[in-house]
Amino acid sequence: MTADFRVLAQAAIDAKTKPLGALGALEALAVDLAVWQRTLQPSVDPVRVLVFGADHGVAAEGVSAYPAEVTAQMMAGFAAGGAAINVLARTLDAQVEVIDVGVAADLEALAGIVHAKVRRGSGNLRIEPAMTPREMERALAAGAAAATRAADAGCRTICLGEMGIGNTTSAAALVSAFTGTEPAQTVGRGTGVDDAKLVHKREVVAEALVRHPGSDADARALLGALGGLEIAAMAGAAIAGAERGLTVVVDGFIATAAVLAAVRMQPSIRSGLVFAHRSAETGHRVALDALEAVPLLDLGLRLGEGTGAVLALPLLRAACAVLREMATFEIAGVAERIDD
Amino acid sequence: MTADFRVLAQAAIDAKTKPLGALGALEALAVDLAVWQRTLQPSVDPVRVLVFGADHGVAAEGVSAYPAEVTAQMMAGFAAGGAAINVLARTLDAQVEVIDVGVAADLEALAGIVHAKVRRGSGNLRIEPAMTPREMERALAAGAAAATRAADAGCRTICLGEMGIGNTTSAAALVSAFTGTEPAQTVGRGTGVDDAKLVHKREVVAEALVRHPGSDADARALLGALGGLEIAAMAGAAIAGAERGLTVVVDGFIATAAVLAAVRMQPSIRSGLVFAHRSAETGHRVALDALEAVPLLDLGLRLGEGTGAVLALPLLRAACAVLREMATFEIAGVAERIDD
Repeated sequence: MTADFRVLAQAAIDAKTKPLGALGALEALAVDLAVWQRTLQPSVDPVRVLVFGADHGVAAEGVSAYPAEVTAQMMAGFAAGGAAINVLARTLDAQVEVIDVGVAADLEALAGIVHAKVRRGSGNLRIEPAMTPREMERALAAGAAAATRAADAGCRTICLGEMGIGNTTSAAALVSAFTGTEPAQTVGRGTGVDDAKLVHKREVVAEALVRHPGSDADARALLGALGGLEIAAMAGAAIAGAERGLTVVVDGFIATAAVLAAVRMQPSIRSGLVFAHRSAETGHRVALDALEAVPLLDLGLRLGEGTGAVLALPLLRAACAVLREMATFEIAGVAERIDD
Repeated sequence: MTADFRVLAQAAIDAKTKPLGALGALEALAVDLAVWQRTLQPSVDPVRVLVFGADHGVAAEGVSAYPAEVTAQMMAGFAAGGAAINVLARTLDAQVEVIDVGVAADLEALAGIVHAKVRRGSGNLRIEPAMTPREMERALAAGAAAATRAADAGCRTICLGEMGIGNTTSAAALVSAFTGTEPAQTVGRGTGVDDAKLVHKREVVAEALVRHPGSDADARALLGALGGLEIAAMAGAAIAGAERGLTVVVDGFIATAAVLAAVRMQPSIRSGLVFAHRSAETGHRVALDALEAVPLLDLGLRLGEGTGAVLALPLLRAACAVLREMATFEIAGVAERIDD
């Protein structure tokens, strides 16, 4: 059935008044969206960006160029509407929901965000599990609840975003663990650490991988030991969102690490994922390869917050419009190829 | 003055609540737009796509996978609103103006397009000049008039698009002539010719280059001998648009060949050009390198019509919004780097 529908969607694209394949990645995207939504009239709107915030115990190791306090400060920035994701979402017509799943500060008084804190920051994965199994389940559930709220509000698409000082370290550890790749290939400069901090960051991840060995088959255990609360929440949102039929747009390195875990837990969701942006962060390529994913954009972004995901939305809208609105050779009376 | 303004725009971007450079190409784009528009509040809307149509005598050499009649048929398709550029422009909020500068058919009865035909198709560049000097000046003027109409209508941005069976051959000849590059590097499959036609297409371009030798200094002569009427019109639109202060968004291979000629004629316009899309067509890299241009998108498009240019518009809008709307570290009360 799915295979047949893919053939049907491809035939619909091929009948449009353009040389075969001339719209490149847009055509593949249109077909994927049609197959996922089981309609030749796919659509993406309304869209909601879910920005999950949490702190990381591993930040105490000095693996970031910014102090951990920035996580809480940026949550206030999201609530005030002046951060990059707010600006891009307004410009590109997406809603924003910000969810505190583990910021290491009391944000209860902060209006305009969802309070779903599991604990104040994760454990330091170098010396202890980031989360207990129960905490990880609560973080997954907080993400699932956000996706469900979006679906209940009529959204057809969610974008996965995050904020958490230290989270490229956690993401690198997860990608290494899930793919069996050395930290040298998965640990990058994040928000811009210097050479000395980069070496230390790799050592921290290497130690964490020794402390928390795990097989690919045990995705939940790996996610709990090496993940972050916001990363687990993104995994939960991806699974619940896809299961509700939403299209899930994946941002950069951190979000891809989260959906790598999510796909290992629930492989059927893979078809509902659209990869938006190739991050400048070194480990992203490893994670994308593991998911056989080719992102739509490559703009050198390394910010997170869902910014790459939102910037790709116009391409999703364009792909849907091509399938829905373009004339066919037959209708337009345009000659086909000479050699057909 | 311009140098100082660039410093000012860069400082404005660097004060935003994000790690330095974390928005990648979007930041460079924001700075370029600010410098070009001489304001820290740049904007791109309204946008008009100019789609210039013309036929090419060289199509008689069998260098295209499609018959020459398709140019006229597609002009009717643009007028009817069902072609790819119509659909993408509607979706991405741009106006479309279609201008016949040289289609080899009587389109006078076709409503909804601008009639500015210089002649019915260009000469076959393999055996004669594509245009006389007077015809080339008229095509340049037709393009300039379209850009001026857009400026007079309040547009701040124009996108350059085209339709013309055979025009990748003309564009390849121009890029070879302007850069001193062998046809093997500039001639590609266009809309998808087979191996035999590709070999023949390279021979045609090689013969044209021998027949019409010219130096880089003589840009007008090269454009007249090897160009197309729609290519000359795009060059005229780029020059006149930039001189009116418009931002000029350049589509793929054909449009880049046109602005290569335009920049050789009028180097000062280079700063007003934004390169939208890296075409799958082989000669595009050569032309981009000659202009020191890095396109924003790489989606494997090879359609023309201005489709790549329109798909990049949301990135221009996003870049402007970042500069206009994002909060600064100072205002948001967010801590800066530990090592600052």
